[in-house]
Amino acid sequence: MAAVTLDRVEIPKSNTMSAQVKTDAMVVFTPSGRRGKFPTGTTILQAARSLGVDLDSVCGGRAMCGRCQIELSIGSFAKHGVDSKPENLSSFSKLETDYSKTNTLLDTRRLGCSVKILGDVVIDVPPESQVHRQVIEVQEPNMHDPSGDLQRLKDALEFEWRLQNLSCDLKQLQALQDALRKGDWSVTVAVHGDQQIVAVWPGFRDQVYGLAIDLGSTTIAAHLCDLSSGEVVEADGVMNPQIRFGEDLMSRVSYVMMNPGGEVDMTNEVRRAIQKLAERVCQTHGISVEDILEVVFVGNPIMQHLLLGISPVELGGAPFALATDEAVSIWANELNLSMHPNARAFVLPCIAGHVGADTAGMILSEQPYMHDEMMLLVDVGTNAEIVLGNRHRMLAASSPTGPAFEGAQISSGQRAAPGAIERVRIDPHTLEPKFKVIGCNLWSTDRKFQSVTKNIGVTGICGSGIIEVIAEMYLAGIIDSNGVIRGDKASVNDRIVADARTFSYIVQRSEPEIRITQNDVRAIQLAKAALYAGIRLLMDKMEIDSVDRIRLAGAFGSHIDVKYAMILGLIPDCALEHVTSAGNAAGTGARIALLDGQSRMEIIEIVRAVEKIETAVEPLFQQHFVNAMAIPHKTASSPNLSKVVKLPEEKIVSIERGRRRRGA
Amino acid sequence: MAAVTLDRVEIPKSNTMSAQVKTDAMVVFTPSGRRGKFPTGTTILQAARSLGVDLDSVCGGRAMCGRCQIELSIGSFAKHGVDSKPENLSSFSKLETDYSKTNTLLDTRRLGCSVKILGDVVIDVPPESQVHRQVIEVQEPNMHDPSGDLQRLKDALEFEWRLQNLSCDLKQLQALQDALRKGDWSVTVAVHGDQQIVAVWPGFRDQVYGLAIDLGSTTIAAHLCDLSSGEVVEADGVMNPQIRFGEDLMSRVSYVMMNPGGEVDMTNEVRRAIQKLAERVCQTHGISVEDILEVVFVGNPIMQHLLLGISPVELGGAPFALATDEAVSIWANELNLSMHPNARAFVLPCIAGHVGADTAGMILSEQPYMHDEMMLLVDVGTNAEIVLGNRHRMLAASSPTGPAFEGAQISSGQRAAPGAIERVRIDPHTLEPKFKVIGCNLWSTDRKFQSVTKNIGVTGICGSGIIEVIAEMYLAGIIDSNGVIRGDKASVNDRIVADARTFSYIVQRSEPEIRITQNDVRAIQLAKAALYAGIRLLMDKMEIDSVDRIRLAGAFGSHIDVKYAMILGLIPDCALEHVTSAGNAAGTGARIALLDGQSRMEIIEIVRAVEKIETAVEPLFQQHFVNAMAIPHKTASSPNLSKVVKLPEEKIVSIERGRRRRGA
Repeated sequence: MAAVTLDRVEIPKSNTMSAQVKTDAMVVFTPSGRRGKFPTGTTILQAARSLGVDLDSVCGGRAMCGRCQIELSIGSFAKHGVDSKPENLSSFSKLETDYSKTNTLLDTRRLGCSVKILGDVVIDVPPESQVHRQVIEVQEPNMHDPSGDLQRLKDALEFEWRLQNLSCDLKQLQALQDALRKGDWSVTVAVHGDQQIVAVWPGFRDQVYGLAIDLGSTTIAAHLCDLSSGEVVEADGVMNPQIRFGEDLMSRVSYVMMNPGGEVDMTNEVRRAIQKLAERVCQTHGISVEDILEVVFVGNPIMQHLLLGISPVELGGAPFALATDEAVSIWANELNLSMHPNARAFVLPCIAGHVGADTAGMILSEQPYMHDEMMLLVDVGTNAEIVLGNRHRMLAASSPTGPAFEGAQISSGQRAAPGAIERVRIDPHTLEPKFKVIGCNLWSTDRKFQSVTKNIGVTGICGSGIIEVIAEMYLAGIIDSNGVIRGDKASVNDRIVADARTFSYIVQRSEPEIRITQNDVRAIQLAKAALYAGIRLLMDKMEIDSVDRIRLAGAFGSHIDVKYAMILGLIPDCALEHVTSAGNAAGTGARIALLDGQSRMEIIEIVRAVEKIETAVEPLFQQHFVNAMAIPHKTASSPNLSKVVKLPEEKIVSIERGRRRRGA
Repeated sequence: MAAVTLDRVEIPKSNTMSAQVKTDAMVVFTPSGRRGKFPTGTTILQAARSLGVDLDSVCGGRAMCGRCQIELSIGSFAKHGVDSKPENLSSFSKLETDYSKTNTLLDTRRLGCSVKILGDVVIDVPPESQVHRQVIEVQEPNMHDPSGDLQRLKDALEFEWRLQNLSCDLKQLQALQDALRKGDWSVTVAVHGDQQIVAVWPGFRDQVYGLAIDLGSTTIAAHLCDLSSGEVVEADGVMNPQIRFGEDLMSRVSYVMMNPGGEVDMTNEVRRAIQKLAERVCQTHGISVEDILEVVFVGNPIMQHLLLGISPVELGGAPFALATDEAVSIWANELNLSMHPNARAFVLPCIAGHVGADTAGMILSEQPYMHDEMMLLVDVGTNAEIVLGNRHRMLAASSPTGPAFEGAQISSGQRAAPGAIERVRIDPHTLEPKFKVIGCNLWSTDRKFQSVTKNIGVTGICGSGIIEVIAEMYLAGIIDSNGVIRGDKASVNDRIVADARTFSYIVQRSEPEIRITQNDVRAIQLAKAALYAGIRLLMDKMEIDSVDRIRLAGAFGSHIDVKYAMILGLIPDCALEHVTSAGNAAGTGARIALLDGQSRMEIIEIVRAVEKIETAVEPLFQQHFVNAMAIPHKTASSPNLSKVVKLPEEKIVSIERGRRRRGA
């Protein structure tokens, strides 16, 4: 029987390394006895993989998982011709030091991925670092031992793996007799969370897959992962079919309010879409959807509720009560997903009514709780999820930015798609614009631009384009720090045109005309004021004036030019080089949770410790919001929290002690 | 919120007692403050129920459950006018002593069901003996506490009930929002095994039911129990529809062997029959099948496998390997049973390939493991399940008696049904028989017998009738101790007739003729030899020559006259008054397991400790079997086990040191 615990297994990688390079140190592994010559500088993990030695690792050699721990056997090993001494390994690395700060690392232990070979060594792989792939026999039944098949299987699992008190569900129990007899009492077992037997296959098997799903209100993204190697083997996405019930989250909640029971349709639609998506990625990879043993979900609270078949109506109004904020661990078929008959589903925990499992995924991916530096994580969507913290304290909030950053509520706004303007520059003297659209790398002023974009056209302006154009308008003096489009600039360039009682700026004159109206500027001002006020509120709670690192997650964070985010005042003071995109951090978190059972426990613990801040009930949020309407924003010096009272709006507006921010 | 843990709740009974009887002692309960006068001799539990005091009990006042523990408050309580002193309660009873031998009972504690009121007392009901029916509010959500509904429910359950780390499945989670809001944040919660929230109802509710099912190969018997009071409120039964696939167990296994996959049909049929039966008992009681929260099953291993949807083929041949011998705890809907959406199903553990959950139920019902006396439990069906033991050691075996005891393989045999002969007497001088049939209490010699039985007729002879007629034939000298029907007795009564090379005895001359043939006697000899040999084998293993108590379970055990069982030598030496019927002990065990979660843990532990004896591989079994063919039987003196070898059959037969048994 080969037992595979889902988050432990690592397939040895190719054997090519030793053939390609100069070899000058002998490495012998015990207890396997495998040996080979490697160039100095090779890590122990690389050497082990090259030799097919049974050494575990799930973090990809990043000194995070601690699974690849090894011990140096010191001494002269005549039979190997090896004099194994401490100086033949690289000294304790910073990565190892960091690891040992937050984890237990015995004095005699090293991390195989971090330690380099400098001379001949004998390396012992302790039992807990071995992957245990050997096939073990399950005791056959006999008349003298009237135990059940399940009990003999469990005895073998306990003997070989020290797995105790395992449970086995009915479906697997129904299939057990067959598997044991077909495999002639040799089977491969998948054990979920060291607790439950979820699959038993006859003979040896290492083809087990998992699916990480980022369930967005617009897009459902899936990553198919090989649970043995941890690799992402396929990625794919589909539109969330719930869109037909409502473009954004709140309109879907409204749909349920207007059509009681309407959540059932949305639940069914999204589950069907996930099932189809799963089938498609499996087909692409040439496997069966039955090879999927685990599926992990991240998504905002409304998506999470609808996935689970829970009405989202409570999330549509105060007090925004979640049905549950815990992680949910169930059978995939409870979600009507048909994968392996015993496939499990895991939904990451939510943090609060507006701060969902996607934020938990972002936290798991970015791990602010592992660092001393103060990290700000921002995921901008219809709401902005904001996390601020470090290993000592973590705060989280959601800020109602609205959909302006996604191009909605903007007169010429559109989704990020080919033809959408995403980059804009305005000449400060002539006030003439140039731009780039998604799908073409040329500026609109390039003579080939027209022909290259003939098919895609210039159709509108997406979120990152809006940020840039308004920031550029501000830098060019077309709008002032209050966000007013200056009609007096019409004399410099007739792209500034009167528009009822306000003015607009025309980016593209030809059809479709693309103009930035005063309302558009106001919409972005409101959105960015909400975002900044939320961040500022958390900074006040944390009692800090600046952050060490800013990570912008999600599609918006990936596309935005952080320089313009700073010019407009979306984010607080931070050295520009420390403001970076985190990509789809929520999805990455889902993949981590899929591959590493420990990390599920970790994020559950972390989420429990996160302090949730509800912006709607914080007087300070209002104050910051009003100040942040200005470009970049007016900043009250950090208020003494004990003195803060909710001021009437007129009074707040009169506070003008703002200081200009660096950046831009 | 009123929390109901399924096996803890007891509804206070009627208030009539105090009105009916002379009252001469004042009893005050704390903390409730309820008080009343009761006649001396009233138990504390009776008084508590009479006053509606919150005092738990699930064993029906048998000093077994220990839930009704109380403490005497000693002192002069002026405000109650009560001088509460130790002598005002009856002294420590034998029941309490017995209870405290196997359970912890603090010095200050008494069992409320066992202690009698002798004078004025103040009785304190400690928190763990209270049923906790008060309605408690679940914290409503608010903007400052962004926790989930489930978390606030769990907080309340932890606060009130000290229930921690509860899980909640998806179905209940989906219904949670509604229940909390409909109940205006007061709900009744059903918690399974102190671990899982299985039901949440708005407001207060005490109507929760469970079903105990004895799944026999012939009959499915159901007991509907009120989980609050522990009472059986309805009982009903249906034929097992699997009969159309095969009359007895082995023919059903053969069916699957001949028709691979045929187990699916049998599984579906039996599940459908259970569902219908559940619906019928619920309808009779005027409740919905959705009110059933728990269903507990006992049945032999083949019935258990087929119920669970597991092929029974492995149980059809050596080594008779069970898929699992553990208790199975699943959702009822995994068995396609539709009751409460979160109804749980529990199948008692099996002991060995031929010794099933029905035997576990019998053990749980009879509790030999609680006593010092050596108890023999026998359940006779197609196989006889035999359990021998006491608190120190327990042995179990199955003996292949075949179906003769059930009337099969007997020329005039039939099931126990109206018209079947069940009692027989033979005049030792005239050799004339008289008999009774099921459905009529008259002897056949009564002059009204013909008219009374006109409708039912005399149709055949059932299991208990066969035992009696053969024992009476032996007592009358019609058959000798080798079981040979003596042709020379034809001269005394012409009911003894030649029948090819052997003789028969005619019980009824008129149509249908009912005769006992030599083959019939041989069939019973084989069956009783198998039974006795199995018992004797366990006695050898236990190194005893006699037992203290014999309990005969099942339909056969209920109908048989134990005297005749002794005359024929079915059972070993035991004082006749200690040989009694245990009724449907397996079904009783199922009811106990249904009502008392602790007892499930208990039987799981006990079954694990039972030593399983496989008769088929024991040479001693063969020896005992051959000896036991004689009537009553030839008993070798208890052999020295270390000397036993498998003897050739001729040699065994020659051993004749038998001693006649007392009895009859």
